[in-house]
Amino acid sequence: MTNGVDTATLFATIDAVKAAPDAARFQFRAANSWVSGTHNRSTIHGYFGVGEEHTHERSFTFDADHPAVLVGNDNGPTPVEYVLHALAACLTAGIANIAAARGVTLTSVHSEVAGNIDLNGILGLDPGVRNGYQNITVRFTIEGDAPADTLRQIVEQSKARSAVLDVLANPVPVTVKVG
Amino acid sequence: MTNGVDTATLFATIDAVKAAPDAARFQFRAANSWVSGTHNRSTIHGYFGVGEEHTHERSFTFDADHPAVLVGNDNGPTPVEYVLHALAACLTAGIANIAAARGVTLTSVHSEVAGNIDLNGILGLDPGVRNGYQNITVRFTIEGDAPADTLRQIVEQSKARSAVLDVLANPVPVTVKVG
Repeated sequence: MTNGVDTATLFATIDAVKAAPDAARFQFRAANSWVSGTHNRSTIHGYFGVGEEHTHERSFTFDADHPAVLVGNDNGPTPVEYVLHALAACLTAGIANIAAARGVTLTSVHSEVAGNIDLNGILGLDPGVRNGYQNITVRFTIEGDAPADTLRQIVEQSKARSAVLDVLANPVPVTVKVG
Repeated sequence: MTNGVDTATLFATIDAVKAAPDAARFQFRAANSWVSGTHNRSTIHGYFGVGEEHTHERSFTFDADHPAVLVGNDNGPTPVEYVLHALAACLTAGIANIAAARGVTLTSVHSEVAGNIDLNGILGLDPGVRNGYQNITVRFTIEGDAPADTLRQIVEQSKARSAVLDVLANPVPVTVKVG
């Protein structure tokens, strides 16, 4: 075990997927119910992968809302803040795995994520302004038993293989259906 | 109040931003710390908007992890599942606001989000496979005191003005810094 990562299982998993690529086809899911106003709640439990249905060990529920300044009741973070959490979490998980695979023991990884957004977009007040973040910056501080350059390369490799960074940096087809 | 939305305040807020567009410039933030392996934790508290610093009424913390099948300990959802929650939450908040603005009283809004991902991408096993979701589908069931077509148009308008849908469907510049 390095960095809490079971590297033997990690390498065995990669070998298993090499031998049976379809095992890597996953479907993740969330179910959301409106509560009141901008307050709503998601449940995350089941997913598909390695050829079969799975469930997380427990059901996870999360509240989202707008703060008062955005005409909500602050019962949870805004949806766009969850996106920043997802980005930091994805990059950090990758850093721990990649460092372990490279035999680097980490002592700390911290990140601060900031996303700039002009709400003239979602308010429909300026057609030249997009609805979402105009840009996002992640700043890492990372410590471990390797030179700064090696640690920086681990962050770079995590960036190059991040699922959440990809869906932000590149277009994803999203279909919305009713009924 | 319609749908728990204070429509007078909503319209007043839009008018205030019309008069002072810079008020709509927001910065949202998350801070993340690595725990062990793929387990890490984010805190969401402060943000900037309407020309000044704000904090949520309380600090929100969220754990992310991988399940055992992805060599983690299932201490929280995966980062990519949080993205699905964010998308459903954003669309649902928009639906409640838009319905209220149009005088439609909703009785229920539920959505199921599914994202398909081929982990051959992040495992580096197939250069032709992207790291993130190949596609995402959101399926809404919505009930209220309006014809099905009107409810469907409300969902369409929320889609057209969703910040999270935009950052998934269209590219966002993401910068990752170390140190």
